Amino acid sequence: MTASFDDATAVRRLDGTRFAAEVHPGWDIGGNANGGYLIALAGRAMAEVAERPPLTITAHYLRPAPAGPCEFEVATIRSGRRLFTLTATMTMEGRPVLQLLGTFGEQTPGGPTAIIDRPVDLPPYDACVAPPSPLEGPGPAMMDRLALRLRPGDDGFRSGEPSGRAEVYGWFAFSDERPVDPFGLLLASDAFPPAVFNSGLPIAWVPTVELTVHVRGTPGPGPLRCAFRSRFIHDGLLDEEGEIWDSDGVLVAQSRQLALVPR
Amino acid sequence: MTASFDDATAVRRLDGTRFAAEVHPGWDIGGNANGGYLIALAGRAMAEVAERPPLTITAHYLRPAPAGPCEFEVATIRSGRRLFTLTATMTMEGRPVLQLLGTFGEQTPGGPTAIIDRPVDLPPYDACVAPPSPLEGPGPAMMDRLALRLRPGDDGFRSGEPSGRAEVYGWFAFSDERPVDPFGLLLASDAFPPAVFNSGLPIAWVPTVELTVHVRGTPGPGPLRCAFRSRFIHDGLLDEEGEIWDSDGVLVAQSRQLALVPR
Repeated sequence: MTASFDDATAVRRLDGTRFAAEVHPGWDIGGNANGGYLIALAGRAMAEVAERPPLTITAHYLRPAPAGPCEFEVATIRSGRRLFTLTATMTMEGRPVLQLLGTFGEQTPGGPTAIIDRPVDLPPYDACVAPPSPLEGPGPAMMDRLALRLRPGDDGFRSGEPSGRAEVYGWFAFSDERPVDPFGLLLASDAFPPAVFNSGLPIAWVPTVELTVHVRGTPGPGPLRCAFRSRFIHDGLLDEEGEIWDSDGVLVAQSRQLALVPR
Repeated sequence: MTASFDDATAVRRLDGTRFAAEVHPGWDIGGNANGGYLIALAGRAMAEVAERPPLTITAHYLRPAPAGPCEFEVATIRSGRRLFTLTATMTMEGRPVLQLLGTFGEQTPGGPTAIIDRPVDLPPYDACVAPPSPLEGPGPAMMDRLALRLRPGDDGFRSGEPSGRAEVYGWFAFSDERPVDPFGLLLASDAFPPAVFNSGLPIAWVPTVELTVHVRGTPGPGPLRCAFRSRFIHDGLLDEEGEIWDSDGVLVAQSRQLALVPR
């Protein structure tokens, strides 16, 4: 039984700066914890110190994280009225797994506004398809906790028919209809199959080097419209950019990562 | 006389982890050092420890940096064969000014390749226009060291005629024709006037909260094609995405920042 997202990202404060937590089984791909799950877990430890939700957070992925106990050491860099900047190091068995830098705070509604791009264009939720089974082994249990739906065609890679566009578009929701808060947005930023799978390049594990998420709003109810695309795959590295919109047509998160090209 | 880019980003090692440097006058906008200059200066201190150039670096901007002495405290997080991850804190008079997280290393030429987008479309260098004078006071001396050129129309904001598109496209080069190395790319990622100036919103200082740069290649000779755009300006925050291409049509850097909306 896979723990709920809230249980799987629970952190326990040890002292002013240290937290204990558990990398839960079932939030992994082939035994290594999902990158979105890890940044959400770290974000919760950091938010305990900042006493504010994440606005922008960057994670560098140092080693795969199997299920098991972990610790976070959080350091305050600057505590301002509006913005709180802090770092965190996640360790397992004393070795660093994730290094993070974030600025936490709230959006300030109102003020000058200019929104150039439109919400992601997607077929309705029920016209989209459940996510593909994993590359090997039993389906990731994470997908039991999520109610993802992919744009028809964007699941083509699983049947050896990649779309030829390095894109994965789709809907994000929790199976238990838990509202998507900023920590859920961190998970959503890396919960879909890699966009590069639809490029036609060989399919294999895509190790994230760096992932940055900007939280731009608190989602309203309902599944979120998501678009992930890789535009530049060369010299051993690839980008993946993401946009996440809520059902009211509000951009609620932007993400971008740098990853190693599967070989 | 403004120091050359190399002199203005020189760092002096104090011990295994500490560096002294100088925020040079003339690399500022209205007395506060330019954000691209600061990330380049920090990148040089970090590269001394990593013994490799930056691949991906994130800076959080904590306070304005006037000219004067500064220090860097660099900490190694993980030293691998291919990738080296480290943090740095820049302080002035004992107070943190910039907090950084980076992974340093080299691109690995060859391997699977898929490049979806085309180089930025720009009029020739000589058909573009010298950058606008600053909002107030004498022109930034930084512009004497750079040979920027803006796409005609993208300089409209300076005469009260913003293009209405939150874009600034143009060419980047050093005046002294110094080649643009990875540190020059860090500078270039935040050396142009903010794209939001052409949105039609009020023009004022745009404080960067976070800037991430991915170095994707080493530029060949000649001016670089650059595109910066803001797509989502709301709730007190804005994004600015950048792409930098060399004269051979190679994408050499991607940048993205989160900044406070001028009010």
